[in-house]
Amino acid sequence: MKIEIRIAGLGGQGVVLAGHILGKAAAYDGKQVVQTQSYGAEARGSMAKSEVKISDQEIGFPAVTKCDLLIVMNQEALDKYLADLKTGGTLIVDSTTVKPSNLQGKARAFRIAATENAERIFGAKVYANMLMLGALAKVAEVVSDISMERAIRDTAEKRTADINVQAYRKGKELVQ
Amino acid sequence: MKIEIRIAGLGGQGVVLAGHILGKAAAYDGKQVVQTQSYGAEARGSMAKSEVKISDQEIGFPAVTKCDLLIVMNQEALDKYLADLKTGGTLIVDSTTVKPSNLQGKARAFRIAATENAERIFGAKVYANMLMLGALAKVAEVVSDISMERAIRDTAEKRTADINVQAYRKGKELVQ
Repeated sequence: MKIEIRIAGLGGQGVVLAGHILGKAAAYDGKQVVQTQSYGAEARGSMAKSEVKISDQEIGFPAVTKCDLLIVMNQEALDKYLADLKTGGTLIVDSTTVKPSNLQGKARAFRIAATENAERIFGAKVYANMLMLGALAKVAEVVSDISMERAIRDTAEKRTADINVQAYRKGKELVQ
Repeated sequence: MKIEIRIAGLGGQGVVLAGHILGKAAAYDGKQVVQTQSYGAEARGSMAKSEVKISDQEIGFPAVTKCDLLIVMNQEALDKYLADLKTGGTLIVDSTTVKPSNLQGKARAFRIAATENAERIFGAKVYANMLMLGALAKVAEVVSDISMERAIRDTAEKRTADINVQAYRKGKELVQ
C-alpha cells in the first residue's frame, strides 16, 4: 500500500495545513508518512502545494511526481497538475473556484463547493480546506475518520478546533 | 543563494518541529522554502529527519541529497548522513548524545550539549531541539534572529513559548 497525494491551490487557502493534518492522521493510523510543503508564496498570492506520501513501509524521501489523489483549490493548480494525476486516479476540485475539466475518463472526479460553503456555513473562506479534507475522506480510503478528527483537533488552534471539525464533517456530506 | 539543511535524530527529539520552525522563519525573512518531514517513526523510536531548502528563488521540489548544514541529535543519524554533507559544509552535533566524529577537515564542526542542558536548565529533554536551533543561528547565517524567535512563538504552544525562546537563546551561548 502506497498512496501519493498532492494538494494545490493559492497561498492562503490552507493547502499546507491540510497536508500537515492528513500526514499526521496517517501517522496516527500507524502508517509511514513523508510530507512536503512549500512556504514563502503566501505573501504574493501565488501557487502553494503540499504533498503527502503514505505507506505501510518505510518511504524513500524523493518528492511526489505522479499522484493517486489530486486535490485542487484553484484553476491554475488544476491546469498545472492534472497531467501528474495517475490514470485511474482521483481528482477533487473546489467547484467554487475551479471549472470542471475534461478528464476524458482518465480519472474519477469529485466536486465540492468548498469555498462557498465555508463562507456561507462557517463564516470564513479559511475553512474551505477542511471541507476539502472531508471530501477526501469520503471518496478515498486513505486514513481513518477517527485519526483525521484527532489530527484536526491537535493541529488547529484550540478556539477553532470545533469549527474545523464541523467543516471537515460537512465536507463529507457535500462532496459529489 | 540556496541552502540545504538536514536535521536528523531519533523520533521524539523534535527534529520535525525544528525543521518546521526553521522553514517558517526563512519564509518570514521573505525566502522561498521547501520543507520535508517524515512522520510515523516516533512510536518506534527509530530515525526521524526533517529537511529544509531555503532560497531567494523558486525551488524545485525534489528532496535534499547533499546538504550544506547537517544537524544531528543521535549517533545513528551522524553515521548515516555525514556522507551527505557537502565538502566545506557545517556540522552541528548534540554532544550529549553523539560522539565526536573524525571529519578529516571535510567540514566545520560545532558541538553543543543540547540534551544535557535542556534537562539541567529547562527541566526537560524536549527543549534540546531549541538549543540546536540556537546553535545553528549562531554558527550559520541562514535566517534572521527576529524571524526565528517569531517562528518559535508562532509554532510552540502558548504555555511553552517563552521557555522555547529561552532555550533557543541558550543554544546560541553554549555552542562551541
